[in-house]
Amino acid sequence: MNGVPLNQITLIGVGLIGGSFVLDLKRRGKVRRVVGVDLNRDNLDRALERRVIDEAFDRICRESVAGADLVLIATPVSTLPAICTALSGILDKETWVSDVGSTKQSAIAAFQVYLPAHFSRCVAAHPIAGSDRSGALAAQFGLYEGKKLVICPHGAECSDGLKLIESLWQAVGADIFYMSAQEHDAVFAAVSHMPHLLAYAYVHQIADHEDGQKYLAFAASGFRDFSRIASSHPDIWTDICMANKHSLLQLIEGQQAQLQNLKTMLENGDGKAMHRYFFKAKQTRDDWLDQV
Amino acid sequence: MNGVPLNQITLIGVGLIGGSFVLDLKRRGKVRRVVGVDLNRDNLDRALERRVIDEAFDRICRESVAGADLVLIATPVSTLPAICTALSGILDKETWVSDVGSTKQSAIAAFQVYLPAHFSRCVAAHPIAGSDRSGALAAQFGLYEGKKLVICPHGAECSDGLKLIESLWQAVGADIFYMSAQEHDAVFAAVSHMPHLLAYAYVHQIADHEDGQKYLAFAASGFRDFSRIASSHPDIWTDICMANKHSLLQLIEGQQAQLQNLKTMLENGDGKAMHRYFFKAKQTRDDWLDQV
Repeated sequence: MNGVPLNQITLIGVGLIGGSFVLDLKRRGKVRRVVGVDLNRDNLDRALERRVIDEAFDRICRESVAGADLVLIATPVSTLPAICTALSGILDKETWVSDVGSTKQSAIAAFQVYLPAHFSRCVAAHPIAGSDRSGALAAQFGLYEGKKLVICPHGAECSDGLKLIESLWQAVGADIFYMSAQEHDAVFAAVSHMPHLLAYAYVHQIADHEDGQKYLAFAASGFRDFSRIASSHPDIWTDICMANKHSLLQLIEGQQAQLQNLKTMLENGDGKAMHRYFFKAKQTRDDWLDQV
Repeated sequence: MNGVPLNQITLIGVGLIGGSFVLDLKRRGKVRRVVGVDLNRDNLDRALERRVIDEAFDRICRESVAGADLVLIATPVSTLPAICTALSGILDKETWVSDVGSTKQSAIAAFQVYLPAHFSRCVAAHPIAGSDRSGALAAQFGLYEGKKLVICPHGAECSDGLKLIESLWQAVGADIFYMSAQEHDAVFAAVSHMPHLLAYAYVHQIADHEDGQKYLAFAASGFRDFSRIASSHPDIWTDICMANKHSLLQLIEGQQAQLQNLKTMLENGDGKAMHRYFFKAKQTRDDWLDQV
């Protein structure tokens, strides 16, 4: 496990997240060869042209993972069960497996259920970086510099695996944090998945409105920034929301209560209460901005 | 009314919106002298230092408006009744009055009720530009270049007044649109006031949460952009929301229905419906982005 540089990483899902990771690892001499697996042949061709990957497969097969020190799964979270099933039985005994998904209880469950014999070599991780862009062309150098990487140990992994994943992400500039998968999913439901859901809900409301198109002609910078994440990829976010539905259901109920409070303030013309409410939110947000 | 350059504008409320307007008018030679009225003496001093204004008063008095071709009210919308009351009886007969507020039914009502003898010289307008910054120091050149300016005629104004306001805003680079005050308030409730309310509601929910502070340590770019407008000034936004409460109450109910739909999809594990929902929102937002 001190064999960095690695001889081979097999990257399943050659997009922004996985592609940016291997680009930086290659640049820093941490891996010799990257094999890319992706269902989309055009995407693979672009990844080969840009030298994000060195060899391409359009499906998971023994050849694609043979000799891999690490198989990194960087596909939408709902695909993990099928991918682990496909990997089962063809992985070398020594190969490590890790992922980059935004929900970690579902990832660990997939490793445990579909790769049971390999579970001690599976490490669940999540880089806190992204973009509303996607695909191999979106892959970029330096994406993870100064960003957070969360590892969620399940307790059955060999410690060497944790060390390897930690060292690779550190090599691309990330700061490492450890937390349980349950805690992870609650945290990211609150600060990431919920804003996405709310941005979609708001834009959907405008789209549903009979005068929505007319209204949009007057939308300006407030609208632009607030709704930016509603341009995120529906495949990815449907998967994330479904995988983290327990946390999100609680948060939606909390948000409904907030809206009910605001309605009451408006109905009562209670400007003082509304001012206190807005002030507390502004303070929370400004304090956060000072700290990041 | 072809007397541009104007001899004098009296600006009531020397902040980002009014300050940026007179800065550009002066630069383009459209006004000789700007008198600023503001309750905040420090703010007036900064405005004098930066030459946003040429003379300062800390209250509305006959001297401050004497000889003004135009009195421009650029204060939070709830202050219009008190300001119009203070102006009543001290305005020169020929002086035009206009405002920049984000709600226009309330502005016209204030002109009509508190400046009845002067109503034909009052023009309600709204520049679609802003920032989460405020105060005289936030005033900047070029703020209105390529931005929209909406005029909401009430029907009793002299056409010369409409022409004057139109020409001044055109001079600072704005594109002029006309619509009724009722239509204006519905449009901006949907694309501006509602996102602010929702951003405040979301951040308030995090602030209310027992683990909120811990969660915020992991907030990233999605959170940053989505919540940016929750850093807006609580005074200004309380006023706007209260002045436009009828439109907002309808929109909040619409948003509650959207959240209920999403809850049902999550509870039923209906990924197909959620994907369609997210896809429609993304398409609406992407189309908007292509058009602006």
